[in-house]
Amino acid sequence: MAERQVVDREALHRILDEGLVAHVGLIRQGPEGAYPVVIAMGYARDGESILLHGSSGGGMTREAAAGRPVSVAVTHLDGLVFARTLFDSSMNYRSVVVLGVASVVPDAEKAAALDLIGEHLMPGRVAEVRAMTKKEMAATMVLRIPLDEVSVKVRAYGASEEEGDGESREVWAGVLPLAVHPGTPQTSALTPAGVPVPASVLALASADRNS
Amino acid sequence: MAERQVVDREALHRILDEGLVAHVGLIRQGPEGAYPVVIAMGYARDGESILLHGSSGGGMTREAAAGRPVSVAVTHLDGLVFARTLFDSSMNYRSVVVLGVASVVPDAEKAAALDLIGEHLMPGRVAEVRAMTKKEMAATMVLRIPLDEVSVKVRAYGASEEEGDGESREVWAGVLPLAVHPGTPQTSALTPAGVPVPASVLALASADRNS
Repeated sequence: MAERQVVDREALHRILDEGLVAHVGLIRQGPEGAYPVVIAMGYARDGESILLHGSSGGGMTREAAAGRPVSVAVTHLDGLVFARTLFDSSMNYRSVVVLGVASVVPDAEKAAALDLIGEHLMPGRVAEVRAMTKKEMAATMVLRIPLDEVSVKVRAYGASEEEGDGESREVWAGVLPLAVHPGTPQTSALTPAGVPVPASVLALASADRNS
Repeated sequence: MAERQVVDREALHRILDEGLVAHVGLIRQGPEGAYPVVIAMGYARDGESILLHGSSGGGMTREAAAGRPVSVAVTHLDGLVFARTLFDSSMNYRSVVVLGVASVVPDAEKAAALDLIGEHLMPGRVAEVRAMTKKEMAATMVLRIPLDEVSVKVRAYGASEEEGDGESREVWAGVLPLAVHPGTPQTSALTPAGVPVPASVLALASADRNS
């Protein structure tokens, strides 16, 4: 992917706010030495940091909590770029990569952090369900990684080509946009009779969203 | 994310074949020690291996080519799962994580490998454009990682809850499906007058696709 470095805090925030899943990398030690692991996790931005949540007993969250550096990547694939040659073809995307050391969000701040993650992934949902119980909170670990060391890269333009690359003149060039598209809400058998699809789900279902 | 391990080679292949972007993790050495990096890259599956391509001069491809272990994650986000509590809420997804050491695809096999990647990302496109030149091939590095050490995880069911978790009985539960949706092809000014949108783009534009 042709890459363009962006140094705009607002662009950084927007990319993070539009995503749902981050790919988190960390280093593990095996019998044959160190190796990297990449795992997808839900996240949210909280001001100038990113929050990740997982099981208190879970491998990834516990490892990240142990002070090892982690790399957190959020990528939106916005389109396929068809140039007149394969070589010049590309993808439009927006990406953020954060490098940092995670700290565990302390108990006193955990409820607010979990509400923030819930609100990010399912806006409006927190107000529709009961508060988390103490037992549920204890089973959940929230990690905070500051947005200090960040890389923001964006490709957001049409097909381009090097001088002379498009020899085959009768070829179409252009962009096929891609976006994450919600389908029709599927009601669970757990839903009591007569309870309608709530505002949170209707709002999400009515708009495209990038992941 | 609640996770389910899957040990089905066909499921593994399908998940990889439906994706466009992989998140590739590797280990870098810095002045303060080793740290992980995660970068999004285009890829394709070639039988029982995965192919990545990048610039011959690019940092990531060169580092991965140097025999260090890499972790390659492909994730499809298929839906938001609204349980009757935040704690039980989840996401539907399909994910593959591959751990391995990359080998550089030799020159004799590079043209076929690049066609395979092109065909994966833009099916039908290879036949619509000219072949890559020797110069373009020299500027491109293709890496192969065997699908030996793989983890396949899938969550593909409706809202669920622990006994007693849904106390608030009047709450909706269900799934909001998510899929990658193509928009309308945008023709570039580079396209000669009268050249129509080609079959490759029309085919991609007519179907949802996961990324």
